[in-house]
Amino acid sequence: MSNDYEVSRLNKVRQQREKAAYDRKTVHAILDSALLASVGFVQDGQAVVVPMLYGRDGETIYLHGARKARVIRLLEETTTACVNVTHVDALVYARSAFNSSMNYRSASLFGTPRLLKDPAEKLHALRAITECTMPGRWDELREPHENEVKMTGVIALTIESASAKVSTGMPDDEDDDYEIPVWAGILPLESAFKTLQADDRVIDGVTASDAVNDMQGKCL
Amino acid sequence: MSNDYEVSRLNKVRQQREKAAYDRKTVHAILDSALLASVGFVQDGQAVVVPMLYGRDGETIYLHGARKARVIRLLEETTTACVNVTHVDALVYARSAFNSSMNYRSASLFGTPRLLKDPAEKLHALRAITECTMPGRWDELREPHENEVKMTGVIALTIESASAKVSTGMPDDEDDDYEIPVWAGILPLESAFKTLQADDRVIDGVTASDAVNDMQGKCL
Repeated sequence: MSNDYEVSRLNKVRQQREKAAYDRKTVHAILDSALLASVGFVQDGQAVVVPMLYGRDGETIYLHGARKARVIRLLEETTTACVNVTHVDALVYARSAFNSSMNYRSASLFGTPRLLKDPAEKLHALRAITECTMPGRWDELREPHENEVKMTGVIALTIESASAKVSTGMPDDEDDDYEIPVWAGILPLESAFKTLQADDRVIDGVTASDAVNDMQGKCL
Repeated sequence: MSNDYEVSRLNKVRQQREKAAYDRKTVHAILDSALLASVGFVQDGQAVVVPMLYGRDGETIYLHGARKARVIRLLEETTTACVNVTHVDALVYARSAFNSSMNYRSASLFGTPRLLKDPAEKLHALRAITECTMPGRWDELREPHENEVKMTGVIALTIESASAKVSTGMPDDEDDDYEIPVWAGILPLESAFKTLQADDRVIDGVTASDAVNDMQGKCL
């Protein structure tokens, strides 16, 4: 398998091309460090965007929802869906509004959604979604009931095309503007997990596992 | 103007309806506390999702990009665009994978994009985008050059339909599962601005304004 996604009309980054990346490693790293994907599909000829949890297993992205949910039904019928995942890392305070911007890591992928029917494949996908979101959690939980698996619609989307766009560093101002006596720089934004809060109904003496405890303080 | 957006086929929340809200106040609050919108439009019959900065002024959302950018050209041609803004507030560790989820605040809106042509209206919109992202910054910066305004494509999208979906609180488990000796609760996720980092080329003695300094430590 090539290290890079092929550049086509679909995934080509047109603006600020110097920020573009097409290698799988960069795209996968962005996907693996986020929680939420913005999934786009077409309904009645118009675009609808839905935020969804997801899991990645190699070149496959798994999405899930209630079996009867609109997003699952429409993804089932869609030939190509678009998934975007973006982190904002900083506000960039430039010396002009024109050059003010953000630092970010963004990945966009395209693929043909496929509704999973085989219960074993569905379980594999649900495990991937749970483990990508809450590492170590799947094995701490009871097996899903047959009915729960039945009620869950799971979509597998093989990444057929993808690109990343990454913006880092300090403002890039117009030459003349560096003489303006205005402060410029960046304001980092950090998304971090805080302290666990237990449900009142946790059985006395039951504590969070190491895997769950270790999430505290982690940054996306 | 009604306090609520009308419920229609377009904005109706179908799953977990108890989490739905259609009032302007809830939708606006979600929009006003985020930085990035996922904007969906149709290209060649398929959905594309692009992350964009935005500003809100009443019932209008402003988006911008390079005048020649695909997203601006396609929004110009689009009759209805979809914009989603979602915050993840916590991971919800339930007693089953089926009930594991996230706490979140999500707003989806629909409207007809309109490309702004009048330079004064464009400036008003660019000010709104800058002020929503970096409060107080617009007046600290030089006036945009005529050419910068010309090179920027600005889209105004009047919110014609919208809904919010908000999930909070502790896991909602199956009755039987409360007897399982597994930890359950939530892991809050916080997005916070950290410490300003100055560009090396800031003129000696020039410091950040109060408006910029005050952003440090703020949470989304």
